Amino acid sequence: KDSAHLPHTSVGLNKVKRVTVICVLQDINSNMWNMKQLAYGALARRANQIKAELRQGVRKPYKEVIDVFRGDLHGAGMKPLTFVRQVLAACVYPPLINSNNLPLDVRQRAQKELGRCVGGSVGSYSAAAGIPEIVHSISEFIKRRDGGIPSHPENIYISPGSQWSISNILNVLVNREASPRTGVLIPVPCHNKTVLSITQLGAVTVPYYLSEEQAWALQVEELQRALESAKGVCSPVALYVINPEIQQVFIPVIRFAWEKRLFLLVDELYQDCVYGENCEFVSYKRTLSEMGPPFSGTVELASFHSVSKGFLGECGLRAGYVELVNLDPAVMKHIHTIFSKDSCAPVLGQIALDLMTDPPKPGDPSYPLYKQIEHIRAVLVHNVKRVHEVINSLPGFSCPPFEGGLFAFPRLNLTPKAVQKAKELGLQPDTFYCTRLLEEGGVFTSPGWEYGQKEGTYHIRFCIAAPQDIMEELLRRLSSFHMTFMKDFS
Amino acid sequence: KDSAHLPHTSVGLNKVKRVTVICVLQDINSNMWNMKQLAYGALARRANQIKAELRQGVRKPYKEVIDVFRGDLHGAGMKPLTFVRQVLAACVYPPLINSNNLPLDVRQRAQKELGRCVGGSVGSYSAAAGIPEIVHSISEFIKRRDGGIPSHPENIYISPGSQWSISNILNVLVNREASPRTGVLIPVPCHNKTVLSITQLGAVTVPYYLSEEQAWALQVEELQRALESAKGVCSPVALYVINPEIQQVFIPVIRFAWEKRLFLLVDELYQDCVYGENCEFVSYKRTLSEMGPPFSGTVELASFHSVSKGFLGECGLRAGYVELVNLDPAVMKHIHTIFSKDSCAPVLGQIALDLMTDPPKPGDPSYPLYKQIEHIRAVLVHNVKRVHEVINSLPGFSCPPFEGGLFAFPRLNLTPKAVQKAKELGLQPDTFYCTRLLEEGGVFTSPGWEYGQKEGTYHIRFCIAAPQDIMEELLRRLSSFHMTFMKDFS
Repeated sequence: KDSAHLPHTSVGLNKVKRVTVICVLQDINSNMWNMKQLAYGALARRANQIKAELRQGVRKPYKEVIDVFRGDLHGAGMKPLTFVRQVLAACVYPPLINSNNLPLDVRQRAQKELGRCVGGSVGSYSAAAGIPEIVHSISEFIKRRDGGIPSHPENIYISPGSQWSISNILNVLVNREASPRTGVLIPVPCHNKTVLSITQLGAVTVPYYLSEEQAWALQVEELQRALESAKGVCSPVALYVINPEIQQVFIPVIRFAWEKRLFLLVDELYQDCVYGENCEFVSYKRTLSEMGPPFSGTVELASFHSVSKGFLGECGLRAGYVELVNLDPAVMKHIHTIFSKDSCAPVLGQIALDLMTDPPKPGDPSYPLYKQIEHIRAVLVHNVKRVHEVINSLPGFSCPPFEGGLFAFPRLNLTPKAVQKAKELGLQPDTFYCTRLLEEGGVFTSPGWEYGQKEGTYHIRFCIAAPQDIMEELLRRLSSFHMTFMKDFS
Repeated sequence: KDSAHLPHTSVGLNKVKRVTVICVLQDINSNMWNMKQLAYGALARRANQIKAELRQGVRKPYKEVIDVFRGDLHGAGMKPLTFVRQVLAACVYPPLINSNNLPLDVRQRAQKELGRCVGGSVGSYSAAAGIPEIVHSISEFIKRRDGGIPSHPENIYISPGSQWSISNILNVLVNREASPRTGVLIPVPCHNKTVLSITQLGAVTVPYYLSEEQAWALQVEELQRALESAKGVCSPVALYVINPEIQQVFIPVIRFAWEKRLFLLVDELYQDCVYGENCEFVSYKRTLSEMGPPFSGTVELASFHSVSKGFLGECGLRAGYVELVNLDPAVMKHIHTIFSKDSCAPVLGQIALDLMTDPPKPGDPSYPLYKQIEHIRAVLVHNVKRVHEVINSLPGFSCPPFEGGLFAFPRLNLTPKAVQKAKELGLQPDTFYCTRLLEEGGVFTSPGWEYGQKEGTYHIRFCIAAPQDIMEELLRRLSSFHMTFMKDFS
């Protein structure tokens, strides 16, 4: 769908030869040069062309494209939670509050949420940090989640998604006049938009590699290596972690951050998506608190969560929050200023955050239906198992067990012939694979090199949060394509 | 409602003395120092305290606070448009599409909008630049508005409000390594969040003063003076204009931009809000096109609009668009990258943009009701007249005729005694006035100094988009307070 946005050469109102060009490439923000052009643009355009061709009746080996390219539950075919949508609809169109078609607790909840909006409308601005009652409700949720460890509303900011929060905080952390430049340690693989946010600010990313052999675990020795590698290049001030990990790993990571004086940026947006048996989400903040002094009162930490990547899957609503721990009050003032710059997060997204952090309770009319969330969890647990089984049964394809998150990131052992063919086409080898998989199998995934991978290794990435029947169809198509591809280039 | 977000001194999990402080003030982004702390925080906190006191039954000379502090129609008591809210509700909760309680065109429209969403859900991501069909619909709207001058979808980006778009474009324009620094010409008075966006990027604001004597008109001689004043301080690359003006002013402004090689950032978010008799909104782009070569093909222009400040008044949905004109294709690539960084604008906001730019037509079931928009216009036209009459009838208070926008910005001629009293309290004189007006009159406005004003002049700012009865009550309270205040400090 991005095809309309390819730069167009005949911009402008007239075809007159330009005599004044104000904004030429050499003048613009030099950090823009460091921002990798997002290559998935080409794949996405092709996916949309194929979708359009299918609508026009062009015959292909498949009737629909399976779109598992992003971490987008609804995009992949999962259904939204009824309770959430009913409350939001009643907030948008308040006459629904008086109708008998919606459950009583839905109508009461909508009434309560509207009472928190200025002028009783979701169309008015909220406070910059978010609707105060919702910020409070988030702090209560965090406190329950963390076994009673206090959470202060004044340390929580709602924003249009965790990427925005990360950008805002980096904006405060990155000193643009520092020499050497400010560095931020980031995992490889890593969400490419986070990398963009960092380079756009003029900071330097310092990659540390997650260990594929150990189910993409973070290893402190690798953090140490990465930090060493930054010497003379940049001055690292922050460590960004996102991989869902077991708590045991947190302790050495926190010790490392403390010792090296690094600000911890913790993307905990996958806190619902923990699949391992006997695995339970434990937050960095809780771990930090349980470690006691000197760590608990000194390590600076920002934890992110959103309505997008949990079981709500409401990416399109654009809302998330950040909780800040142990920040200097003088720095918090600047954090406040920078969040104030952004008007406010979408009010409906804020209300969805409230519903996520304070859902129906036993006895509420909507409680039984809210168990849809357990169905979603069961689907994901099942999919994780199936993806693991199927991928590992295919030659030249492997996938370590995964314990959390929304993505599979299996490794491709491409043959030299396949790598050579990709080279001839001017493509990265895994981009070549994804392109063929899209064309021939109608499955839209993304290549590993977009997210970073060890030199000479290849991966594909896809979202596992699709309904079971779609996931089975995906695995059938992927298996069949993969066998053909491996044979063709054997 | 901001009170929960005051920096809190007892942050942290433990009260242990801090031994490592990673992020201390002297290390952080030095541009943060230039970001003026938003002083309205204190006023807003007090307004919320007063509201809470009133709810608790504390007796005051008024029963409710009139909140006209922001440009927020719904916040000031205006009602949302029924058609917009019905379509959005049906998009949020699709079973409503099958109910007979909503008009047929509403249900059809919701169906159409959902057909444009990935997976048929407003909970999925859209393309980074926006839903392609909606971007196309915006380009058609612009073309109709501008009398047929072409508008290309590939030059339009949807974002969560015009402030975000401005920040993104400035991010490309501002070269952080330039010496002298990059400058941006901005009007005084000006929205303070725009100023924050510029300083946060490390650019320098170059103020030009609007002429209060001429109804806040922009004067090209003043632009000239401002540009001269930048010599040796910074290197101006862009001119930001927002004031609703008559088209005659545009031509010399465009000539000036052309001559001085300035990128034009045009905030046209008030395009609905034009009140003068025989006044009609004409866009900068149309003017530029009608000027012909060499201007029409060379002057680089970005025009912003949103669902917040038009008659929809849907600030809480967070959506706007920018159209870029005459940009170098190589620069457009970077614009595309930076807009791609931001996931996407809220999908419901995007749908509201579609409804705004492609409303019901004669013959559609919802057409008669959509005339609510004419009622809103009539209220605003009436309010503008009344505010002008009442303010100018008060001693030491004056307001030039205004032809557009959502705010009154009347001038206060404060007595030396009042100025002295403010000084004693450590307040700006107009902040002192606003504080007293809030306490004694229950009217929440903001002081002129927040937006910039000529040295020694004082103003207050308030939104005129309130229902007529509320506006009359506001003017009654303001008049009565003002007379007392002037007497007290005579």
